[in-house]
Amino acid sequence: MKSEIIAVGSEMLTPFRQDTNSLYLTEKLNEIGVTVAFKSIVGDRRKDLVSAIRIALGRTDIVAIMGGLGPTEDDLTRECVAEALGLALHRDATQIAALHARAATWRRPMAENNLKQADVIEGATVLPNPNGSAPGQWLDVTFAGYRKLIALVPGPPNECRPLFETEVIPRLRALLPVRFIATRTLKAAMIPESQADQLLAPIYNAYTDVETTILAHAGDIQLTLLCAKTNQQEAQQRVDELAGKMEEALEDWLYSSDGESLEQIVLFYLGLRQATLAVAESCTGGMVSERLTRISGSSRSFLGGAVVYSNDLKTSLAGVPARLIEAHGAVSAEVAAAMAQGISQHTGSTLGLGITGIAGPTGGTASKPVGLVYIALFDGKKTETIERNFSGDRNRVREWTTQLALDMIRRKLR
Amino acid sequence: MKSEIIAVGSEMLTPFRQDTNSLYLTEKLNEIGVTVAFKSIVGDRRKDLVSAIRIALGRTDIVAIMGGLGPTEDDLTRECVAEALGLALHRDATQIAALHARAATWRRPMAENNLKQADVIEGATVLPNPNGSAPGQWLDVTFAGYRKLIALVPGPPNECRPLFETEVIPRLRALLPVRFIATRTLKAAMIPESQADQLLAPIYNAYTDVETTILAHAGDIQLTLLCAKTNQQEAQQRVDELAGKMEEALEDWLYSSDGESLEQIVLFYLGLRQATLAVAESCTGGMVSERLTRISGSSRSFLGGAVVYSNDLKTSLAGVPARLIEAHGAVSAEVAAAMAQGISQHTGSTLGLGITGIAGPTGGTASKPVGLVYIALFDGKKTETIERNFSGDRNRVREWTTQLALDMIRRKLR
Repeated sequence: MKSEIIAVGSEMLTPFRQDTNSLYLTEKLNEIGVTVAFKSIVGDRRKDLVSAIRIALGRTDIVAIMGGLGPTEDDLTRECVAEALGLALHRDATQIAALHARAATWRRPMAENNLKQADVIEGATVLPNPNGSAPGQWLDVTFAGYRKLIALVPGPPNECRPLFETEVIPRLRALLPVRFIATRTLKAAMIPESQADQLLAPIYNAYTDVETTILAHAGDIQLTLLCAKTNQQEAQQRVDELAGKMEEALEDWLYSSDGESLEQIVLFYLGLRQATLAVAESCTGGMVSERLTRISGSSRSFLGGAVVYSNDLKTSLAGVPARLIEAHGAVSAEVAAAMAQGISQHTGSTLGLGITGIAGPTGGTASKPVGLVYIALFDGKKTETIERNFSGDRNRVREWTTQLALDMIRRKLR
Repeated sequence: MKSEIIAVGSEMLTPFRQDTNSLYLTEKLNEIGVTVAFKSIVGDRRKDLVSAIRIALGRTDIVAIMGGLGPTEDDLTRECVAEALGLALHRDATQIAALHARAATWRRPMAENNLKQADVIEGATVLPNPNGSAPGQWLDVTFAGYRKLIALVPGPPNECRPLFETEVIPRLRALLPVRFIATRTLKAAMIPESQADQLLAPIYNAYTDVETTILAHAGDIQLTLLCAKTNQQEAQQRVDELAGKMEEALEDWLYSSDGESLEQIVLFYLGLRQATLAVAESCTGGMVSERLTRISGSSRSFLGGAVVYSNDLKTSLAGVPARLIEAHGAVSAEVAAAMAQGISQHTGSTLGLGITGIAGPTGGTASKPVGLVYIALFDGKKTETIERNFSGDRNRVREWTTQLALDMIRRKLR
């Protein structure tokens, strides 16, 4: 079954705001075997929206329309769907009562224009929206001789997503042929995207019944496998079989077989080894710490660390001897190693990580160019140091360095 | 003039990848007075793409089509535009030579399928693409009796954006009525979005010739003003006049009158006051440091700091007396103040910032719930402490806390 998602709202036709709900809706639709064939973004103009709805109904079987259900005069979705289908719109007494009840709970008078949200399209089922005042609507209609399923859902993500999942997806599932979906997400670190694809394409291309998607960002590769069958066990078996072959091919680049983030894996290994970690960051400026502390419970293994931007702080917080900085420069393998050792000794952690480099765009020299970084990992006995020269802008250098540092810890503990 | 942007590629109809180029294209089109009336995302299917192109040509004057210009069999944009317009496609000798020359530079043999990229639509101008092998194309045609301008641009952002700006925008500008655009971006911190809109709507609504866009994220409000006139001075005057009134209304919530980020402003004030900053972060886990060090040159005023997740580190790196933690708990105004003082004394910074809180989702108690944070700022003499209780998930609590902390520093130095 093919679907189209229409996002309604002039703000999404500015340079500042983008539809993001559709990624979530796509995931939920794919899970029940519905593909998204088109996405459209339309402004708050009646003529444009009516025509976009008719186009969508003409080319797909299922149309999800997000936004334009609020109380303002710019909120036109209800009127436009009714017009596109040639159906009437009536103000529903139950919905009026619900709006009054909601306003009473909030202890504020209800503005007249709010009543617009009680308008229901002829034949539509009202979909309750516990997180907002505008309910969704569901239509099962005939358009140009074909059966069409239409969902109207509110635009704000905290209203759109729960309503779509609890009210729309079950209604679609009940009407569609039974399909079971199996998925797996594998993740790999620091393998170039082109190399990953060259390695994996011959493997996943042989599984025409499994859809494989590759995403790459700053040294992180995510592979998503999806298989739909009429039998759950068969779908799972196909996905697991392909995943197994890909895992083997990825060797130790693979860090996750089930979608965990690299920081989750690092914290998992730290817990497993009953090890603790402290970090001393210069050019990454706290990015390693920030990634690790995204994870709830990270405090069990991650003690913390120092952001040592100045040379003085490299000495006072990370214990780097001042003469070492003088002799080798702040960006050097020696200083990275001393940072790793110093922060470990200072904090009593099992592992110490030290990062120093030149993120740019300024600060580079002929011998130490922008992008040059040193990462050192101290395990209480010995120190391993990596030198890399990343290309790209300041943010890219910082992101790649952070990813490589986390991957070094993973490889150490594996 | 109305335009439509079509993004071509099945990967943008998965839950994993989104078109982002269109935000950039929209900005550039708006600057020359072209509004974007529709955005469409279409997969790599010939029938779908031909019909989407025809729909776009039927409802707008200018159509930008991104992607689908590569060498694979999924790259169908050239064929589909030719088919939609009923024009021929011919393999261009100059383009074949250019492809061979490019392959030679890279010292690799050219695969046969690359030649597809030399196909040019009848009557099209080839747009050189210095960053990739697929050139763009430009068409000035009649469709259903109306003049239409069509640009085909490659999908990868590093190819799409420069080509659009240097090849497409000047061609459009030459054909469109002369319009001058003036813009301004104001920014405010920690004012609730609804309050900002209530305050500002009566002001900006009186300027019907200036388009005002409000964006809000985690305590950061961005207001973009845009005015198009046939006279540059008049456009600038209208924007400046409205901006002036809005600045006045925003009082000291306003932190930027020209689009700078909050971290840029904080670093600017630190430089101005010849002050230095060090931070001790617990629940934000390095997020404050990470934001400040995004800015090149931040090392002049930002010394660094400590990420003190464990109580021991609060003591050893930020100098918080262990008995203070025992007496008041790690999440307390007293400990935040001691962190601010300790890190300032430890590093010799003019200002010291201390942050402690419960980001959640676990770790909350009845008296100290998830979302409770304390932020302290020490200026060498006295310490100011703020207590807040943020709602939302772990990431939201961390983002709001970081924003409030940066804003405290700004207000201190202003």
